[in-house]
Amino acid sequence: MASVRIREAKEGDCGHILRLIRELAEYEKLSDQVKISEEALRADGFGEKPFYHCLVAELLPALGEPQGPCVVGYGLYYFIYSTWKGRNVYLEDIYVMPEYRGQGIGSQIIKKVAQVALNKGCSQFRLAVLDWNKSAMDLYKALGAQDLTETEGWHSFRFEGEVMRELAGK
Amino acid sequence: MASVRIREAKEGDCGHILRLIRELAEYEKLSDQVKISEEALRADGFGEKPFYHCLVAELLPALGEPQGPCVVGYGLYYFIYSTWKGRNVYLEDIYVMPEYRGQGIGSQIIKKVAQVALNKGCSQFRLAVLDWNKSAMDLYKALGAQDLTETEGWHSFRFEGEVMRELAGK
Repeated sequence: MASVRIREAKEGDCGHILRLIRELAEYEKLSDQVKISEEALRADGFGEKPFYHCLVAELLPALGEPQGPCVVGYGLYYFIYSTWKGRNVYLEDIYVMPEYRGQGIGSQIIKKVAQVALNKGCSQFRLAVLDWNKSAMDLYKALGAQDLTETEGWHSFRFEGEVMRELAGK
Repeated sequence: MASVRIREAKEGDCGHILRLIRELAEYEKLSDQVKISEEALRADGFGEKPFYHCLVAELLPALGEPQGPCVVGYGLYYFIYSTWKGRNVYLEDIYVMPEYRGQGIGSQIIKKVAQVALNKGCSQFRLAVLDWNKSAMDLYKALGAQDLTETEGWHSFRFEGEVMRELAGK
């Protein structure tokens, strides 16, 4: 059986990352919202001042198997700032292809994010999950996360598009 | 009557910003969670690579009034990254002192954030609000924001403290 390793993404992974971003948005039933391109992912994540960081889960074929390594999951994160706790990590996306689930790859990505956060002096990391995605919610809770919408009542709001331009007076 | 202007925060405002961060956390009934110091705010927001940006609402006294300008509100934000839309803004905190509410200062801060976001090529900005804070929710909705927890079902999760250290194997 092939083994999996979690490593930092390289610029050449952006095609795979975009494929997985689209798969995740389809799974979330929100794929019409995906406007990003491979070029934008390359420029924004691998320039002088990266806007995000990314981990990929790479399948390493067993000896004798012909195909090269393949990216089957990812975790995309960036640094945010809490006015209560200072610098923190936000895990924007975490995704594992359906045929590779149940092997602990998602948990491995989360553990790696926890390591990155601690190494950078962060005391927490946050993420968001859709309420009907019970398997993801169960995993995060099993790993020790708190559902802040449930326990404290936080709601996510967004301003966008024409509304934002009007607010800005443009 | 004094007038108000919204401007970018300077390092010397950090004492005022910390006072308002504490007031906001008290209002949110979560003040035990505030661990930040004025020194951290200075270092993290005004170094070579700032982790956040901040707007302040400053009261300008009318002619003949003795006191100098005073900070009565703030909006603290940073840049995040959406895998659907690219670079975006997150408004971590927005607060106006109770005695200065009802004058449109909160809306002015939000409009300024919308301008910053558009000027930096962002297509949206996000924020979070507690479900019992109806006056804030009503203001954001009146200004055109969508409640994504309500319409799409997003829940906020957080890993922190001992849980995070265990995940990281430390």
